[in-house]
Amino acid sequence: MTRHLAAALVAAIGLCAALPAPAGDDAALLEQARALFAPLPADAGTAQYPVTPERVRLGRMLFFESRIATDGIMSCAACHKPGMYFTDGLVKSIGNTGRPLPRNAPTVLNTALQFVQHYGGNRKTVEEQAQRALVSSLAYGNASYDAAMDRLKAIPGYAQAFAAAFPGQAQPVTAENFGLAVGAYERTLMTPAPFDRFLQGDTSALSTQARAGLKQFIETGCAGCHGGVVVGGQMYQKFGVVEPYWAATGSAPIDAGRYLDTKDAADTFLFKVPQLRNVAVTGPYFHDGSAATLAQAVKVMGRVQLGRKLADAEVADIIAFLESLTGTLPASLLEAPLLPPNAR
Amino acid sequence: MTRHLAAALVAAIGLCAALPAPAGDDAALLEQARALFAPLPADAGTAQYPVTPERVRLGRMLFFESRIATDGIMSCAACHKPGMYFTDGLVKSIGNTGRPLPRNAPTVLNTALQFVQHYGGNRKTVEEQAQRALVSSLAYGNASYDAAMDRLKAIPGYAQAFAAAFPGQAQPVTAENFGLAVGAYERTLMTPAPFDRFLQGDTSALSTQARAGLKQFIETGCAGCHGGVVVGGQMYQKFGVVEPYWAATGSAPIDAGRYLDTKDAADTFLFKVPQLRNVAVTGPYFHDGSAATLAQAVKVMGRVQLGRKLADAEVADIIAFLESLTGTLPASLLEAPLLPPNAR
Repeated sequence: MTRHLAAALVAAIGLCAALPAPAGDDAALLEQARALFAPLPADAGTAQYPVTPERVRLGRMLFFESRIATDGIMSCAACHKPGMYFTDGLVKSIGNTGRPLPRNAPTVLNTALQFVQHYGGNRKTVEEQAQRALVSSLAYGNASYDAAMDRLKAIPGYAQAFAAAFPGQAQPVTAENFGLAVGAYERTLMTPAPFDRFLQGDTSALSTQARAGLKQFIETGCAGCHGGVVVGGQMYQKFGVVEPYWAATGSAPIDAGRYLDTKDAADTFLFKVPQLRNVAVTGPYFHDGSAATLAQAVKVMGRVQLGRKLADAEVADIIAFLESLTGTLPASLLEAPLLPPNAR
Repeated sequence: MTRHLAAALVAAIGLCAALPAPAGDDAALLEQARALFAPLPADAGTAQYPVTPERVRLGRMLFFESRIATDGIMSCAACHKPGMYFTDGLVKSIGNTGRPLPRNAPTVLNTALQFVQHYGGNRKTVEEQAQRALVSSLAYGNASYDAAMDRLKAIPGYAQAFAAAFPGQAQPVTAENFGLAVGAYERTLMTPAPFDRFLQGDTSALSTQARAGLKQFIETGCAGCHGGVVVGGQMYQKFGVVEPYWAATGSAPIDAGRYLDTKDAADTFLFKVPQLRNVAVTGPYFHDGSAATLAQAVKVMGRVQLGRKLADAEVADIIAFLESLTGTLPASLLEAPLLPPNAR
């Protein structure tokens, strides 16, 4: 395609008028990338799970609310700290009354766009995840949903906030609505990144090295699993495919993955392929937090999943690409909501 | 004073031009209040403890930083949550690795203006409090200041932030500078409230009931200890003066107060009189969190400190006044800072 023709096409379509049309290698890479990935939507709301302002407002409060927990300190925000890109920076998280969790806490940013939640996929939606956390002994620790709701009902300010979020319901303070509200909030936690601008046609949004890394990422085979809008999160995959992850890393104890939830031998060592948005700022890595650095993580993935011993320069390029998935956290996502005071 | 004369005086002094001069009872109450209390300053910075933007920026990051703690979850913000007016809403707080703390976590809002820190007054300044928390087994849990600083030095982003906050120092990442930075941040945590507008001359900033409560607060004798800019926090006092607090409330175990720090028998049951700013939204109350509601707290104080059995209507008036001490939390105080990522 000549540059004149390309320019004419852009003008005719009326899109990207301010952007120079990418040419040559850049155009080919962009075309390839667009076939594999997609830019973030403004939010992850759906007809079934709408992000109404009232639900999001309530869900944001509940996300930070530690008085629902039996130990009075756990909350979504305890492991998903806004200032740490909604992670806790730990190898494995610490749960209710200080008990260790079996896996690493992934970020909740953009997570609503994954096809299931949790590494084993035992939660279908962010709504289900949030609701069931209420009665998880390692999370909120309540003996029942009723017990959890009694804690919320003891705080006067929530009755009105639930009523506003779920109008027309006689008793809106329910565990299901808790899940719907927290889920609505989480569906707004989108962090557009330089890679989105690239996908929208601005190839200069990625540095030369990041573009080389993207090419490497695709050609090495990473994008075979880490594709789609959140660069992963769309399938299960065995960890590892080519050689045993456990032998390669010495990770212990051995985690049987999805098998723990399904008890189906075919699910042994299957994990949800995690999304890679914000990966550069959300270490340590893997379900077991065994990789402290992104370089380690990329090398392990190449080896056990793809049978590739990546050279340091290839790893550096891939990391440059992965850094282009780091979004900006707007002040609105960093701001804690004011919580209703205790009864007085 | 005639109203004409009062108006002439206001005009002559050139102050409060937009405010009608309070007259009669309001003027007398305002005069009385101004003798006992003072409006909040813009910040609590001093020549020795300046609130430079660089120190405040670093201190705000450190306040939220859980990677300094041996359990990876404690931080200043763990017990002093912005969305809960910098408290945790618990009777007594939960410390490092889930261990219980002996006392209730007070708010850190406006706390730099108290004459000492902690209920027993064993920390002179917010700077000392923050620094020593690094090696408290119940707080950050580090074996030494060096061990704490090693944790900070492992996070690449802090070197630059310390250098900017403490220019000209060869090794600025020190425990002392940690305290100075966190203290500088805390010295900015001021929450002006309707009562400040009242003290500045706008008597309508307090409702009729709140003004009646202020009068009651003064006449009952509360202001004898709870005076000054943060309505308390300027002296020690025995708890209780008239009858034993422990017998009156059944609180257990008995807390010997400042004696625990000084081992001086004269300090038995002495506690720092806590400030009352934001008291209406920072329950439960007292060093032991024994009072769930403000009404309970006011009644207990009247009884054991002043020998007064306050009537319900008197308590309601006092609470209306105490509610006028609730400041607005600006978005800037609710926003978590973005923390530097782990080394990668």
